[in-house]
Amino acid sequence: MKPILFLPVLLFILLPCSGQDTFSPAQRAEWLRKAEACKPKLSETVKTPQRLVSLNKNEDAFQGWEASAAGDINTLYTSSLKKQSGVVVDFGEHLTGHFSCHFNLAGNADSDAPVRVKFTFGEVPAELATPFDPYPGGLSRAWLQDEIVTIDCIPNSITIPRRLSFRYVKIELLAHSSFDFKISGMEVKAVTSVTGTAAPLAQGTPQAIADIDRVGLATLRECMQTVYEDGPKRDMRLWIGDLYLEALANTYSYKNHDLTKRCLYMLAGLAAPSGFLHATVFETPKPHPQTRQHILDYALLWNVALLDYLKTTGDRETAFDLWPVAAKQVEVAKTYIGDDLMYNEKPVWIFFDWRDGLNKQAPLQGLFVKTFNDTYELAKMLGKEKEVADLPGLTKKMIRVARQNLYDSKRGLVVSGPNKQVSYLSQVWMTLGGIFTPKEAQKALKNAMATPDAVYPGSPYGTHYMIEALIACGLEQEAKDYLVKYWGGMVQKGADTFWEVYDPNNDFLSPYKFFPVNSYCHAWSCTPVYFIRKYPQIFQK
Amino acid sequence: MKPILFLPVLLFILLPCSGQDTFSPAQRAEWLRKAEACKPKLSETVKTPQRLVSLNKNEDAFQGWEASAAGDINTLYTSSLKKQSGVVVDFGEHLTGHFSCHFNLAGNADSDAPVRVKFTFGEVPAELATPFDPYPGGLSRAWLQDEIVTIDCIPNSITIPRRLSFRYVKIELLAHSSFDFKISGMEVKAVTSVTGTAAPLAQGTPQAIADIDRVGLATLRECMQTVYEDGPKRDMRLWIGDLYLEALANTYSYKNHDLTKRCLYMLAGLAAPSGFLHATVFETPKPHPQTRQHILDYALLWNVALLDYLKTTGDRETAFDLWPVAAKQVEVAKTYIGDDLMYNEKPVWIFFDWRDGLNKQAPLQGLFVKTFNDTYELAKMLGKEKEVADLPGLTKKMIRVARQNLYDSKRGLVVSGPNKQVSYLSQVWMTLGGIFTPKEAQKALKNAMATPDAVYPGSPYGTHYMIEALIACGLEQEAKDYLVKYWGGMVQKGADTFWEVYDPNNDFLSPYKFFPVNSYCHAWSCTPVYFIRKYPQIFQK
Repeated sequence: MKPILFLPVLLFILLPCSGQDTFSPAQRAEWLRKAEACKPKLSETVKTPQRLVSLNKNEDAFQGWEASAAGDINTLYTSSLKKQSGVVVDFGEHLTGHFSCHFNLAGNADSDAPVRVKFTFGEVPAELATPFDPYPGGLSRAWLQDEIVTIDCIPNSITIPRRLSFRYVKIELLAHSSFDFKISGMEVKAVTSVTGTAAPLAQGTPQAIADIDRVGLATLRECMQTVYEDGPKRDMRLWIGDLYLEALANTYSYKNHDLTKRCLYMLAGLAAPSGFLHATVFETPKPHPQTRQHILDYALLWNVALLDYLKTTGDRETAFDLWPVAAKQVEVAKTYIGDDLMYNEKPVWIFFDWRDGLNKQAPLQGLFVKTFNDTYELAKMLGKEKEVADLPGLTKKMIRVARQNLYDSKRGLVVSGPNKQVSYLSQVWMTLGGIFTPKEAQKALKNAMATPDAVYPGSPYGTHYMIEALIACGLEQEAKDYLVKYWGGMVQKGADTFWEVYDPNNDFLSPYKFFPVNSYCHAWSCTPVYFIRKYPQIFQK
Repeated sequence: MKPILFLPVLLFILLPCSGQDTFSPAQRAEWLRKAEACKPKLSETVKTPQRLVSLNKNEDAFQGWEASAAGDINTLYTSSLKKQSGVVVDFGEHLTGHFSCHFNLAGNADSDAPVRVKFTFGEVPAELATPFDPYPGGLSRAWLQDEIVTIDCIPNSITIPRRLSFRYVKIELLAHSSFDFKISGMEVKAVTSVTGTAAPLAQGTPQAIADIDRVGLATLRECMQTVYEDGPKRDMRLWIGDLYLEALANTYSYKNHDLTKRCLYMLAGLAAPSGFLHATVFETPKPHPQTRQHILDYALLWNVALLDYLKTTGDRETAFDLWPVAAKQVEVAKTYIGDDLMYNEKPVWIFFDWRDGLNKQAPLQGLFVKTFNDTYELAKMLGKEKEVADLPGLTKKMIRVARQNLYDSKRGLVVSGPNKQVSYLSQVWMTLGGIFTPKEAQKALKNAMATPDAVYPGSPYGTHYMIEALIACGLEQEAKDYLVKYWGGMVQKGADTFWEVYDPNNDFLSPYKFFPVNSYCHAWSCTPVYFIRKYPQIFQK
């Protein structure tokens, strides 16, 4: 791919006839060229099945289904598949890659007709035990990983064309002739761009923490492909929110900083003509954004990620190069701030978490302040503070406004929106924005947690910031307890990789109205790796 | 492929430990090497759709469904596929080959999820209008040509992996996201090993004959691949019965005699250890027979085909080379002849036609005699008559026995089996075996046709021999009428290629309990090409 060649086409799409592009075509081309130069080569590791399993209904198991050992893989390989339709094979770990297998004749007969086989790949047992159709989900049914293959004649080898993400594979025979045949040689060419190895944890690290770390590392490994993907089963693309959290975890584990650099550049090169970063971009068939898809909090977190990248790597050249993008996000942010120095309700997607009903007013105020502070820090490191000279004054005022309008000093927490909602994430972002004093923050977080109807985080994404805030204000034991309870809960429920959605109270929670289409290996869930390794004094003892 | 390399393995399969091979390993290897040397290169022609069609129920149409013009293909290509799921595309002719198409975005949105599309390929309209499931058929359901494809992202191009055989393709959208997309660039890389062009028919040839000839040529072209296939949709392999009839048609049209040579050699190289030819052989993954699959009449017709090949080409080297195989088939045949010089009821598959209840005693007696006579003629041409010196005497006796036991001189026809069945094919094979005098043959054939409950041929295969017999005994007008009525009936019902099964009285006849799995382009139906061109005085005026 030669970004410089497709840029004119891209700009034609991005630019309305009368529009003006914030960044020059040459600048965008250069950013995309640099992104391409950092594209990692994927490593391939051949993985084979570990055993057969049976899927059993069990009320105590995650989502009501457990996979129990049901024999050696050779049991499957050495006798006719016709007697074993519906068999489930367990690769023993979550894998992302390309699946292939062989079909061989069994007995004396010849292959006189094609065979039709359905493979269903699942990250978790219930995914294989739940009928996909009629499909009630809110995302494309095609994300579900069931593939029907016609095998013209046997012996033969097949490879499923799409890249898959799974631990278990169910094999169902849909059509065959009278001759017998066997399946064998199942393997996955597992791919990742991870090259390094994470340093071991300190001796004496509690087992619960070690287990969480292991699953977190696997999650990150699976999501680190030619970009920081959000999840290898679904979406398979770069989102800013995932990039930031993966970069944090990568910094404390695999240290592939070029992947962070690549993603920062790619997002920059594909920003909207207004300069507003797109929330997500695609690599194929050539890098392009999801047009008009913006998430305000994600765009601001790109600045935080850039600062973090600079501090981690000392790569001033990249930070200089990308500074105009960071400055532009601040300008974009300002258009969402009213005269009262709070969010002006101008329509835009504000995310913060998968939690229905979460009011975003207070979290956004905290994020504005944090981002402006971080951007100013970045500017100072680059000698660019004159370009954003208004930021210190602005954040000071925004802090004051936040305290006046949102802080309920009697209750000792902030409330958000017209209904004065109490949520964990409102306290979290006030804390991370430095709007609370540490003591206020401690109190607010504790008060929220003690409020029975407080809105609590609905996903590992929101929960990450909860842990960050608890640590930031010195509630270290609470941070550890929360992390062990939340991520350890997934481990106890059998997670090989951490999930996109996890509510300890509802195994079936799905933002997409159908839990099998949830991603069960999701980048934004990998951050225990970061916490455990950045704060060994909290977690590794 | 190097046949000499796999031969030891092959022999290991073919030879029971204590068995003795009729042909030496070196001889088999040489025959297979010669078969491989004649393997034709397939020509590829890109074909594109001609129009859209709608499938309409119509009692008067073949199998109750007709395809009516429903617009230009660009109607499909230029607007969202999401609004056109279920569309049927017509390529305008029967094609055998590899299907591919493109998917492009429609409108501004980006491809943010995979798309799942089901393509159903049909040779005849009813095939696309009849639900395949639950599948009631007696052959593998996987022969039916419906393929489900997951397209990871759009734009993209896809190629269906399996070779297809069809005129119509139905496109159904099974899963998608909110973005719009279009399908375009549908094409088939159509394959055949035909290189030559058949000579034009005489000026003034009746239109009905010209139409039959055109459809016959298309049928033969589609079935001539790297072997004489029986049908490009189903089986896709070399059967002796099809080989013989295709070779006849080829001799009078495309004249690719090397394909005949290849098939004769391949069958010889893959004969059973006893020397008995297998009825069918496969080319992939390496040439091998359908083990223990013998059809007695097919094995004998191989001799007839070899004689015909020698007469057509003058290739004495091949005939010499393969003579031992022909001699062996006579020996095999003798083991099925009892002391009474008739079929001894030893179990073996005897085919002659797809017609339930057809008694094979009389047809087999006729075929024995014809084959022995033809083999003796072949021997004489090769100076080998001493090796089969008993044949003239044997056939003489078998003719006498046939006339004594089977000929009902009062009724003027032969009867077959314990129930004295009257069938067309009994008269046919008595005629072709020269057991009847021409006058007796005329009378017998006419009498059978005049017998209301006589068993008539159930397929174009059996019907071929009916035409051959009518011509052989001088009933030329009857032959022409029969051919025009039978094959012309298919043309009138819309055949693009001739069908495996055709009973003018039952559109839904299927030897496999489900008419959509019938082959609608079947080699053994192509022989009007042979009759029309071999006998211009009958057909081309």
